[in-house]
Amino acid sequence: MSKPPVSCQPQASPSCEVIALTREPLSAESAIELAAAFKALSDPVRLRLLSLVASHSGGEACVCDLSAGFDLSQPTISHHLKVLREAGLLSSERRGSWVYYRIESQALAPLSRLLDIPAIQAGAR
Amino acid sequence: MSKPPVSCQPQASPSCEVIALTREPLSAESAIELAAAFKALSDPVRLRLLSLVASHSGGEACVCDLSAGFDLSQPTISHHLKVLREAGLLSSERRGSWVYYRIESQALAPLSRLLDIPAIQAGAR
Repeated sequence: MSKPPVSCQPQASPSCEVIALTREPLSAESAIELAAAFKALSDPVRLRLLSLVASHSGGEACVCDLSAGFDLSQPTISHHLKVLREAGLLSSERRGSWVYYRIESQALAPLSRLLDIPAIQAGAR
Repeated sequence: MSKPPVSCQPQASPSCEVIALTREPLSAESAIELAAAFKALSDPVRLRLLSLVASHSGGEACVCDLSAGFDLSQPTISHHLKVLREAGLLSSERRGSWVYYRIESQALAPLSRLLDIPAIQAGAR
């Protein structure tokens, strides 16, 4: 079977159908779902954890690689990873003694598209 | 003078130099700034207001056009618009009796780029 494209299934979530903010006003339903994802991204530690996972080879990192560089306890790191996982931005899998986290591109794609405003918007002043 | 391109000035802010999460781990400084912008986006009413302004002709809307469709008081709408303005995602200008809000593409661009994860990340599973 061929690999699936990086896009979400429209039936799975209203945010899957999200297009740039400039196209049309967001529905209340989509706004609630997207706001929850942005809330998960609204913490500097979570953003750094997400970028650590994303920039690791294959978009995956062992939890053992994620604590270095943070002056935070392991439970605090684990809490932030849980928030990212619950928001669908990371997935996790246990292999042997370690948990591995993986970036969920499909969940980030609609957020990126939403904020991708065409150049004409700024040039039109 | 020719119109400026849709990009921010690197000296203006660390987030101006932001590239996709997959390229390298975010610096603590960039993460703080980006998290503040995502915090402004983490409310459904603010996302809907932003999309109303962005989808208006020319990426600009009168405040008089922004209350319809919300079951909220004018002071509440004004508060959310202020949060978006203070985060640099909207700018405002008074003309006659009305205030006009405009989308700030330059502030949204680094957020969009950050979350634009290449397809290979998902396909590599």
